[in-house]
Parts: sequence; structure tokens; C-alpha cells
Amino acid sequence: MSEGIAMQELTVPLKDRSYPIRIGTDLLSHCGRWTAQITSSRILVISNPTVFKLYGAMVEKSLQEAGLEVHRALIPDGEEYKNMEETLQVVDRALQLHLDRNSVVVALGGGVVGDLAGFAAAIYQRGISFVQIPTTLLAQVDSSVGGKVGVNHPRGKNMIGAFHQPRLVIADLNTLDTLEERDYVSGLGEVVKYGVAWDKDLFNYLEEHTGQIMQRDKACLQHIVYECCRIKSEIVGQDEQEKGLRAVLNLGHTFGHSLEKLGGYRDHRHGEAVAMGMVIAAYLAEELGLIQPQETLRIRCLLQRLDLPVQSPEYDPEAVYSGMLGDKKASHDQLRFVLPTGIGSFTMVDNPDKDLVLKAIKRAI
Amino acid sequence: MSEGIAMQELTVPLKDRSYPIRIGTDLLSHCGRWTAQITSSRILVISNPTVFKLYGAMVEKSLQEAGLEVHRALIPDGEEYKNMEETLQVVDRALQLHLDRNSVVVALGGGVVGDLAGFAAAIYQRGISFVQIPTTLLAQVDSSVGGKVGVNHPRGKNMIGAFHQPRLVIADLNTLDTLEERDYVSGLGEVVKYGVAWDKDLFNYLEEHTGQIMQRDKACLQHIVYECCRIKSEIVGQDEQEKGLRAVLNLGHTFGHSLEKLGGYRDHRHGEAVAMGMVIAAYLAEELGLIQPQETLRIRCLLQRLDLPVQSPEYDPEAVYSGMLGDKKASHDQLRFVLPTGIGSFTMVDNPDKDLVLKAIKRAI
Repeated sequence: MSEGIAMQELTVPLKDRSYPIRIGTDLLSHCGRWTAQITSSRILVISNPTVFKLYGAMVEKSLQEAGLEVHRALIPDGEEYKNMEETLQVVDRALQLHLDRNSVVVALGGGVVGDLAGFAAAIYQRGISFVQIPTTLLAQVDSSVGGKVGVNHPRGKNMIGAFHQPRLVIADLNTLDTLEERDYVSGLGEVVKYGVAWDKDLFNYLEEHTGQIMQRDKACLQHIVYECCRIKSEIVGQDEQEKGLRAVLNLGHTFGHSLEKLGGYRDHRHGEAVAMGMVIAAYLAEELGLIQPQETLRIRCLLQRLDLPVQSPEYDPEAVYSGMLGDKKASHDQLRFVLPTGIGSFTMVDNPDKDLVLKAIKRAI
Repeated sequence: MSEGIAMQELTVPLKDRSYPIRIGTDLLSHCGRWTAQITSSRILVISNPTVFKLYGAMVEKSLQEAGLEVHRALIPDGEEYKNMEETLQVVDRALQLHLDRNSVVVALGGGVVGDLAGFAAAIYQRGISFVQIPTTLLAQVDSSVGGKVGVNHPRGKNMIGAFHQPRLVIADLNTLDTLEERDYVSGLGEVVKYGVAWDKDLFNYLEEHTGQIMQRDKACLQHIVYECCRIKSEIVGQDEQEKGLRAVLNLGHTFGHSLEKLGGYRDHRHGEAVAMGMVIAAYLAEELGLIQPQETLRIRCLLQRLDLPVQSPEYDPEAVYSGMLGDKKASHDQLRFVLPTGIGSFTMVDNPDKDLVLKAIKRAI
């Protein structure tokens, strides 16, 4: 607990690009002091109107009190605005404001804001520094850490982007109080993923604390966000650009992306799709004899207790399958699955028998 | 001379991102074999109609003979097309063609093609590999090496971009035969820069071989392109992202950029502006007592013998000065000059007295 505030810190170990993640309550008011350690030049806060209304004033005040010149750019709220047009508007604004190579972008919001702001920072004058202040559970445990930034294209999600690591991540747990229930629960889908794929202790902790988790108990959230960030840091430190190991973080995502697409990116939140995808992945692992049925049951049961969906809508299994193939078919890519082999362990399987995949999908519909 | 072809090779030393530069004659027909060592996936050749007409068939044939599936995207010829719209059209095409993360972009052309194609590769699916086949002297000795990629914005040149290193650079000296005289000579401006700022031996060589240089003698060009790439590799290997040393490569560019802007980016080729800029830089170094007048004279004399301009048009010196300030004034940046202190040595000077700068500019008008 440094500096007299309730805070834990970890480091994403990437040599000269290593950076701290600070997790705790009442951290927003410290963002100015911390950002001033990175730059004395202009700051561009990027947010959306919903989040900015709640936390913008606090963040800008803190930055100003640290002696920084602060500007802002708001992008509309919603995944459909995570696109190149909005990114270029942010870049235009940065140029208008004469941001230079020492300027810093502060991303205040969820995954959409973080991904877009990070990408704008990545391409502005060949890359300037940025600070992530994630305000959703999903962003705090996943998207704000690891440097994957980018935007969607009509032909696919995250098709345009970069690896650009932030200089600092500030996860203020207070911001989770204002999340809508469904968004909060969606974030828990990614939390469970870390337990299933990587960490049995985290999974056990989640099982034992479902009540406190649903009440958004701060001590409980502190533990969860810390553990998820610790796991992600460890993985990203070993495989920054997803050439191997980092793919483990895609557990549930191969099926999940297909479900999201079938739902027109409206019907399912990302974390909900990941939850359903994890169940299908566990079923497929069962079909392949890689996991015991009682382990699958534990995963399914925990997700249900956290109000996450474990049963997909009645999509055509063939449609779910071809949705996963997507461009992979055309590009001769492997269809690679991350599958759980138990609680806290995984394996990768390339091109499993299509009938087994369909069987797994059918079980979850 | 490996593989029985007249070729020299050097390596840009960037650890796991190191890459070879191959310099010689008749190299285009080998590009397929070398690219096939990088990928077996789809290739997107990016070029402009002028260059493609000359060398496109040879390059595509070589790639196809190596068993690669080859597609192409042509951008119009001219600096005004080095913009975000053209980049996004290339990205659209790449998505249409189902390029995946293992696909490779081959940039066939001068600086505009290389910068834009490299940037498209940098942001496509968070970055895919690219190969530079520079076909102008300027691109062979400068822009194709070092990973600076990007496009212009109405508010400034190269304002949007990334550091994204190629996997291979192929400098085929035969392609210099088809350059217009003025483009060839412009490239010599950058060549002289390396001699002035970094390498007395190269400068002496240029002085002793002006005749052969103007005749585009191949042995002479082989030496020059090799030496320039060697120097640039050495510098980029020490300071990839221009946090210090790499700025030496901007000798002549601070004045030069201002002259280019005053000429509406039409009246002066880039290398011509750099030549005039180097002369002004040498005059400023004289004013500051950093260089002997006879050294300035040698620089000026070599440039003249290579048909490069050493006298600026009659711009208002105040306009040249404020053109250099540009956005720097607004962003509280230093006005930093790279100044020669002799042949093959330099120093950096921050915010020199404005009157001395104006005096240096006036001497060159």
C-alpha cells in the first residue's frame, strides 16, 4: 500500500517497455500526478459522453492540478463507433491541438475507448505514449492490458490495429459501481476464462465468493482484478505479439466470435459469448477425451451462478461452424481451438473432426 | 557474392527484428525465392502504374515461380496520394483478398509506395510482414531502410505512421537506369548527406567519382548504395525510434522541409531541398564558429558538381524561419538543428540565436 492509498501494483514485464498496472479504490484523483511522471506536454483525454459525464471532471481536475495542459476528444458510445473514421477524427483533433511526440493520450472508458484511443496514439506521429484508465470490468481484467489496440472494419472486427503498449494502466474499482448489471456480468465471463484456462486457485476463489462477487464487494474485486492482470501480464510478458502462448487467452473466443456474429453484435455481450463459447469448448474437449465431464460441469455451474449464459440461442450448428471458419477457409488457415483439459489447464487442438465440433455445438443449443 | 549473383548484403541489427539489405544488379528475378523464405501465404504487391509497367511483370513472375499466390494493388503516382484514403483502399483490398497474418506485402516503388505500403502492412491485422523493393535512389539509400512508414495529413507530412521494419530490402541497381535525371540527382542529395554528417571516406569517394556518378556507373552505385545503407543500418541499430542519435539523419532537413513547404511541395524535389538545407546548415555552423569556411565550400562545391541546387529561391528569410518553427512554436518544442562540424562529423544545436539563423538563410538566397 504505497503512498497511503489502498492500491496494489504489478508490472507487465516487457523490458524497456514495461509498465505498471495500479489497482485499487479512489485512484482517479491520482492520475494527474502519475501522468506528470511521463510527460510535461499536452494531454488529450479520449472518452465517451456517458463515461466522461461520470468521471471526466475528476480525471481532468487531477491532470490540471499536476500542471498539465488538458484537452479532450469524445467519441460516441458504442462498438459501432470503434472504426477508422472516429480514429481519424481524433487524429485531426490532436493535430489541431498541436500535440507533439511528447504528448500523452489518456483513454478513459471501456474496451471501445481503450482500443480506439490506443490505436490513435499508436499512429499519431509514428506513436505517442498513452495511459489506460479502464472503467469496465472487461477492460480492467482484459482489454486495457497487453497493448492490443485497433478498430473494426465492415469486413471484420479488429482488422486494423497495432501492438502498442500503454505506459500505465489505472484500474479504479470505484468505476465498476456505475456499470449496468449486464455489462458487469459480461466482464465476469472473461474473469472465469482466466480461472479455467490458467489458474485453479482463481477458479476456486470465484466458486467460493459468488455472493460477494455479485454484490461487487470491493475487497473481492480487488483480488479478482489483480489476479486476472497478474495472469495476463505473465502471458503477455512471454508472448507479446501472440505468436504462441498468448492464444490461450482466446479460450471460448473462437466459438464466442461466431455467436457474436450470428447475434449481429447486438444480442450478446462479448463476455456472454465467451461464456457460452467456453462451455462449447469444454464439450468439445469432452468429445476428444481431453477433459472429465465433472470438470465441464463445474465450469458450467460457476458461469450459471454468476448469471452468465451457458446455453446458446437456437442457431443452426452449421452456421456456428462456418462462422468460425470465416476468412480462415479462404486463407488456408488452421482452425485452432484452445480447449480446457481441466480447471486451470489447457491445450491447443488444430482442425478437429468437424462432426465432433458440431456435436459439441449441438449440446450447447 | 553469394548464390552466383553480383550482390552485397548487410544486416540492420535489431535483434529478433534484424533483416538483410541485398544490393546489386539483376536482383528482381530473385525476389520470389527470397520472399518464399518468409511466407508461403498470399502476397500483395503494392506499386504505382509507372513503376509497375516497368518492373511489375518481372517481380510477379518471380513470386509466382516461387509458388506464391500473387495479387496487386496500385496507387496513383505522386506524393499527393501518400494519404490515409489510399492506405485504407489498400487495406480494403487486402481484406477482400483474405490476406491473413502470414501474408506479405511487397512494396515495389519509390518512397511514396514504400511508406504507404509499409504503413498498410503495419496496421493490417495488427501488423504483417513486408518486403521493400525500392526503385529510386532516394528510396534505396534512405526511405526503404529503418522502418519509418506512414502517410501525410493536410496538416503536415508523415503525421500518421508507425515504426514497422521490413523483413527484407532488395535494392536492384538496374531500376535506377529508368529514373528521370532530376529524380536521380535528387537522390544524390541524401547520399551527400551521409558523407557530410557521418563518413569522410564516403564524401571523398563522391568527390573523386562525380563523373561516374553522373553516368550512373553500376560499380560506383553499388559502392554508394552499400555505404549509405551501412551507415543508416548502424544508426538505426543504435536508435530505432529516433530518441537521439537517429536525428543526425535529419541534417539539412529542418531547413529543407521549410523550403519544400514554401515551394508548395512542387518546386523542389526532397533531395534538392535537403541539398539547399545542408548548405544553410553549414552557413549556420560557420556563424556559430563550429565549422571552417573551407569545409562549407567543399560541401557546396560537391553538391554543385552533382547538379544539386545550393542556392534557394528568393524566399523571405522570415518565412523560411517560421516554416521551420511550424507546429513547434505551438507545442513549446525546441528548434533543434543538426549542424556539420566538418566533413563526416556533426553536432546538435538547440534554439540558436534567431538573428544568426536568419543570416545563414540570407547567405543562401
